[in-house]
Amino acid sequence: METRVTLLDGGAMEQDGMLMFWMAGPSGPYRFPVYSVLIEHAEGRFLFDSGVDKALFTRLVAGGTQTDDANVPGALGIFQSERQTLPGQLDLLGLAPRDITYVMNSHYHLDHVGGNALCCCATTLCHQAELDAINHPHPIEAFGYSDNRFLCPQSPIDGRATDIYTPRFEALCGDVEVAKGLTLLETPGHTPGHYSLLVRLARRRPMLFTGDACYSKRNLDIMAIPGPHVDPKQAYGSLERLKQLADLHDAELFYSHDRESWPSYVKAPGSYV
Amino acid sequence: METRVTLLDGGAMEQDGMLMFWMAGPSGPYRFPVYSVLIEHAEGRFLFDSGVDKALFTRLVAGGTQTDDANVPGALGIFQSERQTLPGQLDLLGLAPRDITYVMNSHYHLDHVGGNALCCCATTLCHQAELDAINHPHPIEAFGYSDNRFLCPQSPIDGRATDIYTPRFEALCGDVEVAKGLTLLETPGHTPGHYSLLVRLARRRPMLFTGDACYSKRNLDIMAIPGPHVDPKQAYGSLERLKQLADLHDAELFYSHDRESWPSYVKAPGSYV
Repeated sequence: METRVTLLDGGAMEQDGMLMFWMAGPSGPYRFPVYSVLIEHAEGRFLFDSGVDKALFTRLVAGGTQTDDANVPGALGIFQSERQTLPGQLDLLGLAPRDITYVMNSHYHLDHVGGNALCCCATTLCHQAELDAINHPHPIEAFGYSDNRFLCPQSPIDGRATDIYTPRFEALCGDVEVAKGLTLLETPGHTPGHYSLLVRLARRRPMLFTGDACYSKRNLDIMAIPGPHVDPKQAYGSLERLKQLADLHDAELFYSHDRESWPSYVKAPGSYV
Repeated sequence: METRVTLLDGGAMEQDGMLMFWMAGPSGPYRFPVYSVLIEHAEGRFLFDSGVDKALFTRLVAGGTQTDDANVPGALGIFQSERQTLPGQLDLLGLAPRDITYVMNSHYHLDHVGGNALCCCATTLCHQAELDAINHPHPIEAFGYSDNRFLCPQSPIDGRATDIYTPRFEALCGDVEVAKGLTLLETPGHTPGHYSLLVRLARRRPMLFTGDACYSKRNLDIMAIPGPHVDPKQAYGSLERLKQLADLHDAELFYSHDRESWPSYVKAPGSYV
């Protein structure tokens, strides 16, 4: 079968512009899209990221208002209809979360894992460093990793958290071709175990999903890393790597939270082949 | 002689509130004081930081307006009278920059080194890591380190930059008591070689000058690191260290850029003994 890529609209969120473009801004509320990527492939249905859980998010940021806790980014907001949840989007394709074979996440921040726990039949693939980070978050990372419902608090085997919803949980390191034409590429800095995803298709240029290594085209244009990060120099290096990868593979970049590019992306039920 | 500490008003600057309090904000223009500290000591006149050069700064940020270069922090501004320059402040005490024996800098960002080059008879003390950083800045550090006029581009001896204005230039590592009761304490993260300064006095509690390891009391209250940083986890650790040091030495904290605390500080020609 032919590999098919479908973008699943997850609604929008809002944070301060200084957190979109570190040091550069401009400041003030900045609304950005959230989405997941379904890759229907000969080896199964792969989901790259799974959106945000609106109810949990709203509870965490106390109704979307700013708090005086430095671990909660300022001016957060969420905008999501029922149709923009993971089940709502899969339904457009006649699918449900249980039909997902593999869940992959760029990283484990709460706006990328909201639907993980719903994918009850999937194997979860992730970077070992990301698993370590969500299991033992530093205070500066704690808010980002506050949706950890898809992890088991303790594995009976070695005390390390693992996924209780799936038959298999595979932790990866380095760049990995997880299936033919589907490659996870290390782009750390925003988080320690961040992956971007390269997808080769039969009838178009490869698609390179940046994840939060690069929120938008403007981040790359002015070389502004995301405001939230664990290692700013590493994050800068990942911006450089994305440029190099796009050149090397003649790939089209798809940014994670780009309000300017988003309108031009094809969304479910449309797809890329 | 009795050690005497005098705070030299260096005027004010403005940057976005998201850069004062990383992740927390609130965003919008935030005006903060800039100052230097003169310590008159039996072993000489020590200067901790030397303010900002208004002319250079204004040129760098193109008149204080925001640029589209991610290396230039958003919404920068400067407010400084002639009286608020280093010579203007020292003049209040009947002194001039040539009377300074030692220049120490918390770090080499441009709002802390503006008067260094004027101290033509001083020995400069600094952390080796800070010297390395200003000599070979990463792109994300380049703007901060753009006042490097007090360094010689190349030393004829080992190719490493050194201070051409002073007879001696001493690079330090670790915590160092540079003179009796005067101790530089490592607080990295904002920059790689950041030092805070503890001063013991005869007739009051020790003074702990945080430098930019902690801009203000609110940063410590909500544990918000400065927006500009090279290592956020290290910067968080330095906030914790400052709390511990204040407890250990029963020291009073003096923050580098605290618009709330600043009015209560005694300034030149007044002093602390």
